[in-house]
Amino acid sequence: MTEGASAPSYPMSFRNRVKRRHDRGFYDHATVHKILDASMLCHVSYVIDGQPYCTPTFFWREGTRLYWHGSSASRMLENQSEGQRVCLTVAHLDSLVLARCGFNHSADYRAVMAFGSAYLVTDPAEKERAIVAMVDRFFPERTASLRASNKQEIKATSFIAMEIEEASAKIRAKGVADDDEDYELPIYAERIPVRTVLGVPEPCPRLLDGVTRPKTLDGYSEGRLLEDALRDAYFARYKAE
Amino acid sequence: MTEGASAPSYPMSFRNRVKRRHDRGFYDHATVHKILDASMLCHVSYVIDGQPYCTPTFFWREGTRLYWHGSSASRMLENQSEGQRVCLTVAHLDSLVLARCGFNHSADYRAVMAFGSAYLVTDPAEKERAIVAMVDRFFPERTASLRASNKQEIKATSFIAMEIEEASAKIRAKGVADDDEDYELPIYAERIPVRTVLGVPEPCPRLLDGVTRPKTLDGYSEGRLLEDALRDAYFARYKAE
Repeated sequence: MTEGASAPSYPMSFRNRVKRRHDRGFYDHATVHKILDASMLCHVSYVIDGQPYCTPTFFWREGTRLYWHGSSASRMLENQSEGQRVCLTVAHLDSLVLARCGFNHSADYRAVMAFGSAYLVTDPAEKERAIVAMVDRFFPERTASLRASNKQEIKATSFIAMEIEEASAKIRAKGVADDDEDYELPIYAERIPVRTVLGVPEPCPRLLDGVTRPKTLDGYSEGRLLEDALRDAYFARYKAE
Repeated sequence: MTEGASAPSYPMSFRNRVKRRHDRGFYDHATVHKILDASMLCHVSYVIDGQPYCTPTFFWREGTRLYWHGSSASRMLENQSEGQRVCLTVAHLDSLVLARCGFNHSADYRAVMAFGSAYLVTDPAEKERAIVAMVDRFFPERTASLRASNKQEIKATSFIAMEIEEASAKIRAKGVADDDEDYELPIYAERIPVRTVLGVPEPCPRLLDGVTRPKTLDGYSEGRLLEDALRDAYFARYKAE
């Protein structure tokens, strides 16, 4: 999972150190980013008056910075001119693991927790880039084909960004792992793979005559893993990385 | 989505009221529980020293109480004899929505945020029930076929529970929804369904001769939606509800 000891890594602290099952923990950029880029859905946690909130939202990564759509911005950032501490988490469920005892029932998964201070994107140039990226990161080159955003839409759209200060990945990928002596027992055990896949694309029923699906959407084809489509789209936009 | 005005509902407060797009908000038990029971993965947010954490973990519901496996318990509940405020969130991504302008790009989804005070399950009888439920809620009757838990395992397993004090569901299920005038534009738009499905079950390579897959796992079959298998399993265990 790592690319050698010299690979760039996120610093380890009491916050992001994987305490339980630390053999499953990774901190290098490559492992962390690969898990992040395989998802468009994240969960963002923040605190208001001591109460934690956990909001599902869409996000994308640019280098070591994460952006997300600010549907939660009103609640999260009101009365906050300074940064707000957040934890942004992505989790992929890869399988259900049925073992020979209850204790060893488990799942294969890949997850990342990323910590930092979130800020509202107010710089006009950064916001303009984000408005393009929120579409083109997932659907390469799509913005150029769309009706341009108008002032009201730009005003009504808010983005939150966070430089990743600390992050950890946690991965389990070993299927059934029973205690040695339990393998002698006549008990059924298995791994059930879980995959998130794309269905048959449904063109809008109100398309004008002659409007067809652009080639740039070829990556989003029936039966494909969502994460493969998302990763390909990411690399199409952020080639430099 | 609701079962009439008299259907039991969670109380609305400043915490769980769906502020943005409140037309997408639901508070009745039936809608909230249906979304919860379609998932085994949730994200739990809690606060330590002002820092929010967002931990993915497995959970299940019993009435209006949620239980989850305490892999996060050590960090979350250390130094906490009293309840700890948490927000437990479940989100299902149902489709990607490509509209005719950037602003109307969206997704179909179902999500629940549930609020309450979490406590460590210390009562021996409640913990014993949870040890069975954490397996049998997902795989009906399976515990009876397993090697029994030993004292060390019981000690090493921790559960956290939370009575739902407030909860809200948020649902978008309308596919492409463009501004009226944008339908006149020659721009391609579509909805791409996303489904989380089960793969081919992989029996443990070390099964003893003659050990076969029990009928109770029939619900977990190749190509089935994970959420359908989970809902069927829930009803098999909690028939009374």
